[in-house]
Amino acid sequence: MQISQDRLDQLLQQIRPCTRNGRLASYIPELNKADPDTLGICIIDMDGNMVSSGDYETRFTIQSISKVITLIYALESYGDRLFTRIGVEQTADSFNSIIKLETRNDGKPLNPLINAGAIATTSFIVESEGREGIKNLSALLKALAKNPELKINEIVLNSEKRTGDTNRALAYFQHGQKIFDASVEDVLDAYFTMCSYEVQVKDLANIARIIANNGTDPETGEILFSSKTAKMTKTIMTTCGMYDSSGEFALSVGIPSKSGVGGGILSVVPGKYGIGTLGPALDEKGNSAAGVPLLQRLSEDYDLSIFS
Amino acid sequence: MQISQDRLDQLLQQIRPCTRNGRLASYIPELNKADPDTLGICIIDMDGNMVSSGDYETRFTIQSISKVITLIYALESYGDRLFTRIGVEQTADSFNSIIKLETRNDGKPLNPLINAGAIATTSFIVESEGREGIKNLSALLKALAKNPELKINEIVLNSEKRTGDTNRALAYFQHGQKIFDASVEDVLDAYFTMCSYEVQVKDLANIARIIANNGTDPETGEILFSSKTAKMTKTIMTTCGMYDSSGEFALSVGIPSKSGVGGGILSVVPGKYGIGTLGPALDEKGNSAAGVPLLQRLSEDYDLSIFS
Amino acid sequence: MQISQDRLDQLLQQIRPCTRNGRLASYIPELNKADPDTLGICIIDMDGNMVSSGDYETRFTIQSISKVITLIYALESYGDRLFTRIGVEQTADSFNSIIKLETRNDGKPLNPLINAGAIATTSFIVESEGREGIKNLSALLKALAKNPELKINEIVLNSEKRTGDTNRALAYFQHGQKIFDASVEDVLDAYFTMCSYEVQVKDLANIARIIANNGTDPETGEILFSSKTAKMTKTIMTTCGMYDSSGEFALSVGIPSKSGVGGGILSVVPGKYGIGTLGPALDEKGNSAAGVPLLQRLSEDYDLSIFS
Amino acid sequence: MQISQDRLDQLLQQIRPCTRNGRLASYIPELNKADPDTLGICIIDMDGNMVSSGDYETRFTIQSISKVITLIYALESYGDRLFTRIGVEQTADSFNSIIKLETRNDGKPLNPLINAGAIATTSFIVESEGREGIKNLSALLKALAKNPELKINEIVLNSEKRTGDTNRALAYFQHGQKIFDASVEDVLDAYFTMCSYEVQVKDLANIARIIANNGTDPETGEILFSSKTAKMTKTIMTTCGMYDSSGEFALSVGIPSKSGVGGGILSVVPGKYGIGTLGPALDEKGNSAAGVPLLQRLSEDYDLSIFS
Repeated sequence: MQISQDRLDQLLQQIRPCTRNGRLASYIPELNKADPDTLGICIIDMDGNMVSSGDYETRFTIQSISKVITLIYALESYGDRLFTRIGVEQTADSFNSIIKLETRNDGKPLNPLINAGAIATTSFIVESEGREGIKNLSALLKALAKNPELKINEIVLNSEKRTGDTNRALAYFQHGQKIFDASVEDVLDAYFTMCSYEVQVKDLANIARIIANNGTDPETGEILFSSKTAKMTKTIMTTCGMYDSSGEFALSVGIPSKSGVGGGILSVVPGKYGIGTLGPALDEKGNSAAGVPLLQRLSEDYDLSIFS
Repeated sequence: MQISQDRLDQLLQQIRPCTRNGRLASYIPELNKADPDTLGICIIDMDGNMVSSGDYETRFTIQSISKVITLIYALESYGDRLFTRIGVEQTADSFNSIIKLETRNDGKPLNPLINAGAIATTSFIVESEGREGIKNLSALLKALAKNPELKINEIVLNSEKRTGDTNRALAYFQHGQKIFDASVEDVLDAYFTMCSYEVQVKDLANIARIIANNGTDPETGEILFSSKTAKMTKTIMTTCGMYDSSGEFALSVGIPSKSGVGGGILSVVPGKYGIGTLGPALDEKGNSAAGVPLLQRLSEDYDLSIFS
Repeated sequence: MQISQDRLDQLLQQIRPCTRNGRLASYIPELNKADPDTLGICIIDMDGNMVSSGDYETRFTIQSISKVITLIYALESYGDRLFTRIGVEQTADSFNSIIKLETRNDGKPLNPLINAGAIATTSFIVESEGREGIKNLSALLKALAKNPELKINEIVLNSEKRTGDTNRALAYFQHGQKIFDASVEDVLDAYFTMCSYEVQVKDLANIARIIANNGTDPETGEILFSSKTAKMTKTIMTTCGMYDSSGEFALSVGIPSKSGVGGGILSVVPGKYGIGTLGPALDEKGNSAAGVPLLQRLSEDYDLSIFS
Repeated sequence: MQISQDRLDQLLQQIRPCTRNGRLASYIPELNKADPDTLGICIIDMDGNMVSSGDYETRFTIQSISKVITLIYALESYGDRLFTRIGVEQTADSFNSIIKLETRNDGKPLNPLINAGAIATTSFIVESEGREGIKNLSALLKALAKNPELKINEIVLNSEKRTGDTNRALAYFQHGQKIFDASVEDVLDAYFTMCSYEVQVKDLANIARIIANNGTDPETGEILFSSKTAKMTKTIMTTCGMYDSSGEFALSVGIPSKSGVGGGILSVVPGKYGIGTLGPALDEKGNSAAGVPLLQRLSEDYDLSIFS
């Protein structure tokens, strides 16, 4: 393991002031209760060496990072058929994007890592698997995180359900456009549930590490998903994972990543590391205000960009 | 009464082939069961003289024409406060418009005669009057139509509720944007109910005649709404009543009107006539393919444009 | 003449503070040199009675109001063919609208009273009449204003030409879309020239009066344009004349009008009055901040709305 | 060199029918004169081994691929200052994108590999270097291609200048938005000139090979540009290089590439190969209809994706 504890602690110290450049998400009351100064990171290499720094024990909801799990599950189960329903292009539109920004003229959502696209991906699973779908998604999340103890934060879940009008609008609109046939409420149930799992940065690092190892658990050799799915996931994370600053993040960091409004970022350094970061203060694009510069410094110092 | 039965029959005969330039609405199965060749009209002057021609006895659902009733009710009850929530500008966007086309950046719907705006207008009423709101709206409709026998078409209503995903998306989106606080399902109930009233062209002509007489029943002298409300209604019908061909309709016809996807058009010739037409085959903008040219010929032959 | 000098002076006095709610246009240096407190009006009735008040002698450039002259000329010379190239619908988009807001998907500009549409209208004339086109347009302007002494403000014209990049972009874009074939620079020359004529409110009132009298000079009986053209012009002014507050203006004022960024408004009260107002401080939509409320008060007090 | 001549010939044979899925670009008459069945490729590895197949000797204009040269030049000369004027995000909008699709609300073009962004990049150079700018850009192109004989196709250049109205609109619009100060015509001169250079696939392969070797000529060791610039270029090519199918291309091919409407594609396999392909029949996104599947097969067969 080349990234030393000392160096990581030092970096985290230097970057922590960036938390002040952001703001907590406010659309759910619970997200707004986080400590905005929080900054934590966990890095695990292929051999299982782990370094953590800062507030690495803090729990937070996985939010949009769960879109990666849903995508992996759907790619494994349904393959390229997924792309009959969902595109894979990035939009240059803003974080506050609504229907107009999240679908093309034909109503097909732009990509699986934005809300509209993740709802459509979830609809695929719910249509085929019904109520089992959500169980299967939960099981995959726990397996990838190597953490059977992961729990749903019920307060967040209820809050999402109660206040999720924009997601509900996205779902009804797509249903009206015949993008999917499943019950809107069942799809939203599964979608909101996956967003509400509570994790630590270590869980994100474990998930990322298996993607970095092309779907195979480096310890046990167990194949959790195919290398083709891993490759597709890394690609889509690169082009679409960081909202409408995906292009800028590719330029400054160059590590396939996915962020969530809970402040987490899951980052995959192919063949090398799985990384989880947490910094709930968000920039205006909806990405962690301190997490992004922390990853940028790591990428620069250890030459981690896939574009190097 | 200057418009003779003979002349009207002759005009209707000449225009009837235009029904073939349109198509029945298909988003609800029931609308698609209409006879596409249908064309009917009823004209009532201020003295109560009535001429009808063609399929004037055919029943059809009022659909978007009910937005005029809802607007009149809201203007009478809440006045200018309505415009804190809804704009009064026309959009040049298409009939199939979705959220992106029906709201400005702030989520405020463009005007009260498109779906988003009518939903917002209805929300105003539902918030203040709850379940009574829908009764009050129904009562106003029957009073203006001078027809206490008007009934809801329950098949259409159920179909609207079942398939109204785009309207549901519009409502949830606005609720998410804090445009209104009332329950989305209550607002949609009232909205769908008003769209599902079954009418004949005579009913539309009666409603239009009272607007043409500035809110006062010419027979009884009863004031059903203020002349200020009548003036606002005529204005908004002129600028926004015919979807995204409102400008073209003003140019070629020049009579304040509102169309519905059931094929009806309600037209107000100020101080002179109330007119109801029916032609369920629709042009690509969603207006009656034969109803519009029929009104154009009437406007030209009898110089009815308010812009003359 | 029912509008007395005293009453008009009083109204103007009351409304003058509204000039402080606006700002001078700044995109051309010359416009920014106007006195923002300026407010003037001239009203002429069909019998030739004239009342003026406030800064009625101030000269200003006609700017977008010239689009009405160009429209009248094009309708007279080319009739309905104009609408093969230009639409007649209003947009709900903002004053700062650019190409995306001024054309439909097919590149056809929305209506003849926005920049893109007026450029397309001008192209029609330039294509057929070449260099004569601009002379003919100028001649019509002088005839309608009954003022052969009208002059171009050369400083404004040069400034328009030098800084008119957005208009140039609109013109090149349309040329690229094959909306017109004429030389872009010739079309812009004519367009900028017409915008640069210097007028007084009396000139606007004279033009408006002839439109109000359906194209015929009430004094001499000379037919300057057809009543059909007059009707079309009044219609398009009503639906599209006040930028994206045309709907609101129709509601609050209801007088067919066209504004310009020089602060002028030309208003047509059919069969009654021609009105010219000046108030160079503009609201955020680009209309005169004091001119609009002045017209609203006049409309209310003398019941001038065409929707009454 | 692992890619054998036989295998490449075989692949090209298999893919050639895909040329029939596309159409020649028609916006310039000269592009439409190409033979639509053309398909050629050249691959050069780091050691200088070269394999070519198909119509590898055909000459064609470099078109949008020159945007890569302009980007490299600007990054080397002006560094990150470039991004004060131009974004780095991809748009999901179409090939026929116009101003509305190529700029954000602030008028800043989305990225340097679309027309609006390349015009802005060119403006940077023209502002600082004037007429020398175009000489310097030409010199860099020849140096990277290792071909001092490269010539401008004057017929294409004149055609571009004569018919380039949409690009002219993009440039004037940006100038009007104060995105740049340089003369619009000078900027367009430089832009059109760079698009009009005539190349063979070998030239593209040579350029790509130097990018693949991080800016250093593998033969001579000469540093033509910094590894930082190489990394940025590869990143932007990945996220934005293939118009609005950049995301799909990343998924199916995964090789940083840039296409042009002349049918060329320049592809960089980091540390391994420089590839040039030609297939002038274009798909509906504007990319080579046969070039893309040829690269996809190469990527799959030789595992060339950077996301593997």
